[in-house]
Amino acid sequence: MDPWTVVYEGFDPEQEALKEALCTLGNGYFATRGACFHADANGVHYPGTYLAGGYNRLRTEIAGRVIENEDLVNLPNWLVLKFRMDGGNWFDLMGVDILSYRQVLDLKQGVLTRDVAYRDPEGRETEWSERRLVHMAEPHLAAIELTITPKNWSGRMDVRSALDGQVLNGGVERYQNLSSHHLEPLETDPVDEETIFLRVRTSQSRVTIAQAARARIFDGDGRLDVHRETVQESGYIAQDMVMDLSEGKGVRIEKIVSLYTSRDHAIAECGLTSRKTVAGAGGFSELLRSHALSWKHLWQRFEMRFRIKPEHEDDHTAMILHLNLFHLLQTTSMHTMDLDVGVPSRGWHGEAYRGHIFWDELFIFPMLNLQMPEITRSLLMYRYRRLSEARKAAKAEGLKGAMYPWQSGSNGREESQSVHLNPKSGRWIPDNSRLQRHVNAAIAYNIYEYHACTGDTEFLSFYGAEMMLEIARFWVSTTTYNRGLDRYEILGVMGPDEYHDGYPDAERAGLNNNAYTNIMATWVLEKALKVLDILPEDRSRELCEVIDLDQKELDEWENISRRMRVVFHDDDIISQFEGYDQLEEFDWEGYSKRYGDIQRLDRILEAENDTPNRYKVSKQADALMLFYLFSAEELKHLFERLGYSFDSEIIPKNIQYYLQRTSHGSTLSRVVHAWVLTRSDRERSWRLCREALKSDYTDVQGGTTPEGIHLGAMAGSVNIIQEGYTGIEWRDDVLRFNPCLPEELDHLTMDIRYRGHSLGVHITQETLTVNNRRCAEKPIAVGYRDDVRELKAGKSQTFHL
Amino acid sequence: MDPWTVVYEGFDPEQEALKEALCTLGNGYFATRGACFHADANGVHYPGTYLAGGYNRLRTEIAGRVIENEDLVNLPNWLVLKFRMDGGNWFDLMGVDILSYRQVLDLKQGVLTRDVAYRDPEGRETEWSERRLVHMAEPHLAAIELTITPKNWSGRMDVRSALDGQVLNGGVERYQNLSSHHLEPLETDPVDEETIFLRVRTSQSRVTIAQAARARIFDGDGRLDVHRETVQESGYIAQDMVMDLSEGKGVRIEKIVSLYTSRDHAIAECGLTSRKTVAGAGGFSELLRSHALSWKHLWQRFEMRFRIKPEHEDDHTAMILHLNLFHLLQTTSMHTMDLDVGVPSRGWHGEAYRGHIFWDELFIFPMLNLQMPEITRSLLMYRYRRLSEARKAAKAEGLKGAMYPWQSGSNGREESQSVHLNPKSGRWIPDNSRLQRHVNAAIAYNIYEYHACTGDTEFLSFYGAEMMLEIARFWVSTTTYNRGLDRYEILGVMGPDEYHDGYPDAERAGLNNNAYTNIMATWVLEKALKVLDILPEDRSRELCEVIDLDQKELDEWENISRRMRVVFHDDDIISQFEGYDQLEEFDWEGYSKRYGDIQRLDRILEAENDTPNRYKVSKQADALMLFYLFSAEELKHLFERLGYSFDSEIIPKNIQYYLQRTSHGSTLSRVVHAWVLTRSDRERSWRLCREALKSDYTDVQGGTTPEGIHLGAMAGSVNIIQEGYTGIEWRDDVLRFNPCLPEELDHLTMDIRYRGHSLGVHITQETLTVNNRRCAEKPIAVGYRDDVRELKAGKSQTFHL
Repeated sequence: MDPWTVVYEGFDPEQEALKEALCTLGNGYFATRGACFHADANGVHYPGTYLAGGYNRLRTEIAGRVIENEDLVNLPNWLVLKFRMDGGNWFDLMGVDILSYRQVLDLKQGVLTRDVAYRDPEGRETEWSERRLVHMAEPHLAAIELTITPKNWSGRMDVRSALDGQVLNGGVERYQNLSSHHLEPLETDPVDEETIFLRVRTSQSRVTIAQAARARIFDGDGRLDVHRETVQESGYIAQDMVMDLSEGKGVRIEKIVSLYTSRDHAIAECGLTSRKTVAGAGGFSELLRSHALSWKHLWQRFEMRFRIKPEHEDDHTAMILHLNLFHLLQTTSMHTMDLDVGVPSRGWHGEAYRGHIFWDELFIFPMLNLQMPEITRSLLMYRYRRLSEARKAAKAEGLKGAMYPWQSGSNGREESQSVHLNPKSGRWIPDNSRLQRHVNAAIAYNIYEYHACTGDTEFLSFYGAEMMLEIARFWVSTTTYNRGLDRYEILGVMGPDEYHDGYPDAERAGLNNNAYTNIMATWVLEKALKVLDILPEDRSRELCEVIDLDQKELDEWENISRRMRVVFHDDDIISQFEGYDQLEEFDWEGYSKRYGDIQRLDRILEAENDTPNRYKVSKQADALMLFYLFSAEELKHLFERLGYSFDSEIIPKNIQYYLQRTSHGSTLSRVVHAWVLTRSDRERSWRLCREALKSDYTDVQGGTTPEGIHLGAMAGSVNIIQEGYTGIEWRDDVLRFNPCLPEELDHLTMDIRYRGHSLGVHITQETLTVNNRRCAEKPIAVGYRDDVRELKAGKSQTFHL
Repeated sequence: MDPWTVVYEGFDPEQEALKEALCTLGNGYFATRGACFHADANGVHYPGTYLAGGYNRLRTEIAGRVIENEDLVNLPNWLVLKFRMDGGNWFDLMGVDILSYRQVLDLKQGVLTRDVAYRDPEGRETEWSERRLVHMAEPHLAAIELTITPKNWSGRMDVRSALDGQVLNGGVERYQNLSSHHLEPLETDPVDEETIFLRVRTSQSRVTIAQAARARIFDGDGRLDVHRETVQESGYIAQDMVMDLSEGKGVRIEKIVSLYTSRDHAIAECGLTSRKTVAGAGGFSELLRSHALSWKHLWQRFEMRFRIKPEHEDDHTAMILHLNLFHLLQTTSMHTMDLDVGVPSRGWHGEAYRGHIFWDELFIFPMLNLQMPEITRSLLMYRYRRLSEARKAAKAEGLKGAMYPWQSGSNGREESQSVHLNPKSGRWIPDNSRLQRHVNAAIAYNIYEYHACTGDTEFLSFYGAEMMLEIARFWVSTTTYNRGLDRYEILGVMGPDEYHDGYPDAERAGLNNNAYTNIMATWVLEKALKVLDILPEDRSRELCEVIDLDQKELDEWENISRRMRVVFHDDDIISQFEGYDQLEEFDWEGYSKRYGDIQRLDRILEAENDTPNRYKVSKQADALMLFYLFSAEELKHLFERLGYSFDSEIIPKNIQYYLQRTSHGSTLSRVVHAWVLTRSDRERSWRLCREALKSDYTDVQGGTTPEGIHLGAMAGSVNIIQEGYTGIEWRDDVLRFNPCLPEELDHLTMDIRYRGHSLGVHITQETLTVNNRRCAEKPIAVGYRDDVRELKAGKSQTFHL
């Protein structure tokens, strides 16, 4: 199998939505869903086009109750390029005999193609072929090329090219009763012979969106002059082009589209700029050339080259790895750097979770830090801009510092729903997911790691440190002192495992002393104190003045960072939370038999009027997250600092304990488990890694991928290879490696960036070679375990493993 | 004189516009003019409030000819807080006897106060006192506090607090025939008992602007509940508050205002956010506290402490230095970093030059690089975002690469006027200033220097290098080869000296072989080639692919960088341009006698139907810019690379030659001349430095400062002290000093940042001490002339001079 193409043969109405999501094209500025071209009740359903970071709040009244939710914006649809023969109905895949159908996503060049041959009820055989791109170098441009060839007939064809602002958000079935109409029409204008223009505005957030589309028709290489008519409705403009086709002779239509919004930089006015841009844009093949060059450069940075030994050969791993990276780079690209957008858990690929920003960054940033840390920086700036909102949120709860929300939207306020629908029972269930305060630890962790990897002290000084200090302060304010134990506790929160949001039959939601939360809070306190040491004295003093932080408070941090409570059971099992040991064991076998797929046990149990809160059962890794984020040495340090003993033997014991009790109801779960097993069980790790890699490709949750890919799992699974199997760590100004390639891999080669250097890394089962490409910078220190060496520019170092 | 306050005693209608400009308050996001409160024909004239980077294109038809110009946006005026007694006329300074009037700008805290006592025609004596701030920590907030005390009467007072979107741009007299109406009304809303709200939109660029204002009245410390009435007109909303005053008892009105636009980050919608923000904002004294803390921190970074020896004591120097820094930091602040704004030549202080971006960065960035290089980075990003527009401009002229415009506005297109008005003759004169292509060299220089100072290779790699390469390519495309001389030439341009835009009686505008332009182009080529070496190999290769740059073209750069032509005359005078020696000497004495102030000789001569093009006379430093930007060593290298001999003795000869022939018609001129004399004539340098410092304070050009301060001169004059007298250079990874303090200075102490380090610098006439504050970074190399030493974190080095 070609590791650079995703190929779908045949048309299958059941599968189109999944193919659509997996073939979504984007460039960080906007994204458009890929392939679907099937009929719905109104004729043709065109998939969504989403604006990165464009949110709009909608109100729905259901039985007198007003539900407000902030949703990502489905842009006016620029994909409309439809045709009909001899004045009949517009082409509809469902109404013809499909002779052949092949859809290919070219990951190397970022181009989606479909080639279709069909016979219509009148017996006309026609071939059409489409290519599509969302430009990776010119983020405001996208293009479609459609070639239509009549195989056994001649006659008239109408082609319609439209910009359709009458679209609704309609991609997630369970949101169907909620309002879905985001756009208000403002203006339609037939600019010139070949160009149409549409201006709309989001109804609540009032972002003006302008699109211009230029359509040209070619007969061989020559331009075809055809009769055109403009169709205008409120929020909709189209150009109908009439042409005569001759048997066997194809015509080619190029539609070039530009998109600008009122939030864009360096423009006078978005409508003006979108017209100018489309007027000056090259043709499809010219755009394709520069687009493909951009992708070539992205792949030069991000590609991981490895060989699976012949006896373990499988078809998919390399291709899926590329697919996952492809979607990561379409969601958070170079173009994200200059926008105020975060990294949504489902990409800009679908409407699930409404484009909100969760904690997935924790799984994504490590990937970016080693290749294009500027993207991480911009995504951390997204958080920084929402620091004051996080401060307000903490204050509103009677806490201090900054409390970032579990689901963050336009302005950084909490967008988590308070009820959610169980599709299995049809009931609306209270949703306590906002109690996942651990998202704050993830943000602090990401800041610290970004700085450690890049050495970007300016960022830390201006932005990062302030966030870390305010998050540390938040954690302190969440603690209560348990006098009996002389320990600090964090009560009433949720860990990453969403099966547990409280104690069975308890009145209040939330759990006490979630181990992951408590340890992360401890880590944040220690590192926040360290950050004050890293910064120049004057800047540290300044920051303390700005946020009114005195030595007494710092002493309290130091104290709490040494006295946080962690609960254990069965000797040395880290209790996921206090009281975990009191829960019942779950009947895995019985439920598996009864339900088959039990990844979403929460829904199954709720439909049975039961709750996972009663059982030792996890949706995803929770306590094990600690082994994911920290090396054994770091954990030993953290536990011993707290006055708990830590023997590295407890690691496999804990992994084993929780793995047996996890349903992998989150796509992130396999990522974590594959990672924590890298050293103790390489074979199982590699198996889980491959499963994690293909979570979306196979729609492992049976229906969630069509609502948007899972970016945390996509990036996290790739990062098992980039960082897990290589054992890369950047601590104390040394870039350390500790490779443990799976047996199945012959070698692994990749390029990484570290503190401004470009390094080539080559790992086999026996050796590690790091090559420092020419760069007018000081040497860096690289190490394999304790063997630390100086690596000068232009030189390489080889370690024997 | 207190070096931290600007004090104006008394009210003088002639001086108010100057005071207004000098007391403008800003925070990088918006700026508001300060003090003016005098009557105009319509009652009260309120000064302008400008939005950083907010541009709007206006059309004017004059005698059938359409003039389009892009102008900075005068925001709705939020300053309106007026009062009247017993239902009489609104208070008007011109209609009362002023008993005392004192206006103070507190530079340390960023607060403007006015204290006025007056007697009205009815014999009532009243004192009022006003404090005003534009918040430096919360960029969307501003506040006024007005205290009114009836001295000898009791009675009713009405206070009106308004948001006035009916404003016009009216600050520059010679623009008065041009359209000046920027705002379209959208919405007025009395939000609640104490809050009013206004939404307007710029008419062409369609930026929505939302303001909310909250007014509270205090009687002593208690809140006063008064009757309020709302007044609404199209684009105007006010609240009239009625209160009873008792003799001797003051009331205090606080007006807190928030401003958001549709371009802001991290908001849902600007109207919603402006209401929420003003509702949650603290009172005046709370805002003042956090505002003053922000200024305290800015001053900790930017303050330069020096002592003028008692025998040379003068009143003004320290205060004016602070004033200049104050305006620099109000125009390009921390808040600029996250906006898409440039640094306008007149600040956001007035309407002259319409907020456009010129080459003044060249005089401003050196100041910022050593204190807050993040600001420079953001301002260079402003250029990067306009790279594609610069490419289009080059292409439109048949040139290659990127040609940045002389005057850059919203989207980076050329905004220079093609005619300008000579107020002396009343004639419209062709304006060829856009031929000042040297702005491109300034941008390249700024990129290179930023990187050299900060070591920010990520910026260079992603953004800076691409600009430098495209600018280098532009310069090559401007050259023509002179076979006879075997030299490359640049023809038909203007140098910095705007008195010369062509040869006398020539048909085409432009000069040939302007020395400054040619040498700068040479420098750009050399450094662009070097940048490709500095970057990692893979990134250089990538860049060359993106912009289609091959070895053949690079070889051409190398060749031209060694064969550019420089013209000399009188043996070793660098000719300002080819043919300069043929021009007539100018009758300086005669014209001085006849006109007194001859700084703007161009206007004088034009009014006499003559032109400065005929004379050896410069408006400002042109060839001497070379000595400003480069050390003797660097110039020697540049000239010798070109195959010209360079003896350092030519430096004073050239300085002397051109100084005699310069009218200082630009405020930048004295900056350059003070700088180039630092080593050869310290006394004269210090005199010129002091003159340069006070260019705006004294409105040296007689009328231009009221139209907006001159930011290049403000920053550049301060930088004579920061970099000129200290001889700071950052070359080849060494931070070098070469102090030559003016005799008049006892010592100079300042903090600088260099590659992430915080350094304390203390210079006396005998010693130089550099102290590396604690910072977890590697040591740096510091040097005094050839004495280069390693400076570790937490240590200091002292050199004896």
